[in-house]
Amino acid sequence: MESNVSVGLLGLGVVGSGVIKLIESHQEELAHQLGCNVNVKSALVRDLEKARNVDIGDTYLTTNPDDVLQDPDIDVIVEVMGGIEEARRHILKAFEAKKHIVTANKDLIALHGPALQEAASRNGCDLFYEASVAGGIPILRGLTEGLVSDRIQKIMGIVNGTTNYILTKMDCDGVSYESALQEAKELGFAEADPTADVGGLDAARKMAILARLAFYTNVDLEDVEVSGISDIQLEDLQYGKKLGYMMKLIGYAQIHEHKLEAHVQPTLLSRNHPLAGVKNEYNAVYVYGDAVGETMFYGPGAGSLPTATAVMSDVVAVVKNIRLGVNGRRHIKPLFKKELTTPDESFGKFYFRLHVKDEVGAFSTISTLFNNLHISFERILQTPFIKEELAEIVFVTHQTSLLKFEEALEKLKSLDVVKEVKSHYRVEGDADQ
Amino acid sequence: MESNVSVGLLGLGVVGSGVIKLIESHQEELAHQLGCNVNVKSALVRDLEKARNVDIGDTYLTTNPDDVLQDPDIDVIVEVMGGIEEARRHILKAFEAKKHIVTANKDLIALHGPALQEAASRNGCDLFYEASVAGGIPILRGLTEGLVSDRIQKIMGIVNGTTNYILTKMDCDGVSYESALQEAKELGFAEADPTADVGGLDAARKMAILARLAFYTNVDLEDVEVSGISDIQLEDLQYGKKLGYMMKLIGYAQIHEHKLEAHVQPTLLSRNHPLAGVKNEYNAVYVYGDAVGETMFYGPGAGSLPTATAVMSDVVAVVKNIRLGVNGRRHIKPLFKKELTTPDESFGKFYFRLHVKDEVGAFSTISTLFNNLHISFERILQTPFIKEELAEIVFVTHQTSLLKFEEALEKLKSLDVVKEVKSHYRVEGDADQ
Repeated sequence: MESNVSVGLLGLGVVGSGVIKLIESHQEELAHQLGCNVNVKSALVRDLEKARNVDIGDTYLTTNPDDVLQDPDIDVIVEVMGGIEEARRHILKAFEAKKHIVTANKDLIALHGPALQEAASRNGCDLFYEASVAGGIPILRGLTEGLVSDRIQKIMGIVNGTTNYILTKMDCDGVSYESALQEAKELGFAEADPTADVGGLDAARKMAILARLAFYTNVDLEDVEVSGISDIQLEDLQYGKKLGYMMKLIGYAQIHEHKLEAHVQPTLLSRNHPLAGVKNEYNAVYVYGDAVGETMFYGPGAGSLPTATAVMSDVVAVVKNIRLGVNGRRHIKPLFKKELTTPDESFGKFYFRLHVKDEVGAFSTISTLFNNLHISFERILQTPFIKEELAEIVFVTHQTSLLKFEEALEKLKSLDVVKEVKSHYRVEGDADQ
Repeated sequence: MESNVSVGLLGLGVVGSGVIKLIESHQEELAHQLGCNVNVKSALVRDLEKARNVDIGDTYLTTNPDDVLQDPDIDVIVEVMGGIEEARRHILKAFEAKKHIVTANKDLIALHGPALQEAASRNGCDLFYEASVAGGIPILRGLTEGLVSDRIQKIMGIVNGTTNYILTKMDCDGVSYESALQEAKELGFAEADPTADVGGLDAARKMAILARLAFYTNVDLEDVEVSGISDIQLEDLQYGKKLGYMMKLIGYAQIHEHKLEAHVQPTLLSRNHPLAGVKNEYNAVYVYGDAVGETMFYGPGAGSLPTATAVMSDVVAVVKNIRLGVNGRRHIKPLFKKELTTPDESFGKFYFRLHVKDEVGAFSTISTLFNNLHISFERILQTPFIKEELAEIVFVTHQTSLLKFEEALEKLKSLDVVKEVKSHYRVEGDADQ
């Protein structure tokens, strides 16, 4: 058996504790894979005195980053401290000391991934970040190794557990957004300040990372358009159900003729779609490849031990590379120059819910508007008299461009018979008729 | 750019043609990944004159295996000829000539995988077989790399597209086994002789391969108990539906205290289970890990191009290893000595359908029998008078051992009030109440 591998931790919170537990409890399997033991030599923490819910064994706790970053015994550093600037500085310093980095930090990788990858390669170091997207689901390896020979065209992800939990509760139990959010907080599926989750930013970070790897192009976080779930009305879930759809916060990234389209938004998803079965706090990433067709990777998107398995799969990869002497050599540069789709190049189906004056010819006026834009309807539902003299109309269009959708939306708002456009959503997949 | 990589094919059928198409159409991505071009130099075929539905370009066709096996220009040989003995001989000869092997041959790997792996390692060669299980789904990499740091406890697979198509049709359209099979044949989802598929052998081969990799132990094909779907009655699907279950051919492999349980059998699966959404010819593998919890990998289980993506992901891995000079070094020997569970160590829930005499005390006699064996019921359905003086009783037990199940089954058959035990199935997951 070769000499042991020493790991240093930056951070000892939820994921860091999971890493310690996993190494402790799965030492036999790890040693079998690697031909040596793995131990956590030291961990950078904020507070040495804080009570921990994990037995840290011989791990040395320190508040001085250099105790970890400059320790010659440490080969691999696991960054699970979160935040951006401090983590980034530590990682760059670690690369200079020729340490390999495994990180679970999606915020950091979404913003600075390509630059950090460059720094890693320059120093002959590995930088792996499987845990940064969809927790325990090995989706980054799925893309970069499993589907490496395919040309991936589209990714759709349910990559935020908080919002998926909230939307599942709203859909199954018919409760409002506010009570579902409250329940999610009580169960620990939502943070005290859930803004980044419910606003869609967290999902956007993950989609930027996924899209980079899938499409071989430098996707920046600001390339991903974002809208969140906090304005979603129960009515739209109920109409969706009638039409065969369910509301999901879908991260969408597509490449078409080398042009990128990426967004995160609440979407009415067909109940026949593989992603429709992804409930509660679970995550899944649906990948459509030119040759392979439809695939999906499903699992827990967060949690101490699930995320730790992703971290440790990266540590195992680093250690195997150390044994083989091949670290820092698998970095692939972007293949395509990034170009974003314009609204006339982006296509989709759209759901509208309108309040209209309940008078003769109202619907005819609306359908003429859509007809003139060459947008046709796939499904229409009309409920008369929801309030005095108001009817509620719900319809789903066939495929049309985003440009035409936006034009239709503007024109609808200016129509005299339209009292209010209550809501509109993208629609994905075909519902049962 | 380094010199090109030459691939040799053994066989040019459905998968072989897919490999040629994929290399041709995705050359840009492959070259970007590998820093060199990949070309198929030669292919071993049975009939040089046969019309092919693929443009083979410069590929040299030959009926002499040595033209491929002994060609010094060829680094990687892709075995997609099928069959067992001939393929095995060719592969062993290829290893002696220091060629790396990528194979899609599940029959061969299920029977001879460990011995071939030994031969590969001895010669410093790679042996990869991602395409042998579940076509385009990168499940072997998911197990051996993505979930490498976890301790996998259980795998459940829908790993045969033919049977899943048939059972989906029976469930959704209410057609008989025979007509569903007929339809599957017409659509090309079932072969002219579907015995290996409908009998469960094909799924058992895949489960043996999966279990070996997941549990680090030498699982043999004969360790997997098999029963097929050809006796399934529509009645049981319909009762299943009433109880919240659907019938699936489930490959099951579990390790518990280092003891292995593996079987392939028609199973009533809860409609809430992630695998329940896997319809038609699709495959999926559900993996339960100690730390990660529930994950699932979903995609096409067969087909020319999907299977070719799996083959080519292996070719890419081999070529990267060649570039790095690390072939043949990642073989892990079994960690555990295999031991199989005995019937008193295997647990499950069971569904029974009985015809009983419709007389006072009949059900009481049956429930006393189960009571005496300490088996309790989870759900009971009774339909009186299906024929004169016969009632049909359907029930699902709570968890019990296989030993007790078998004892109950024997005793039921000998009861005077029981006219016939019409069927019994394993049940997985909890149905809605």
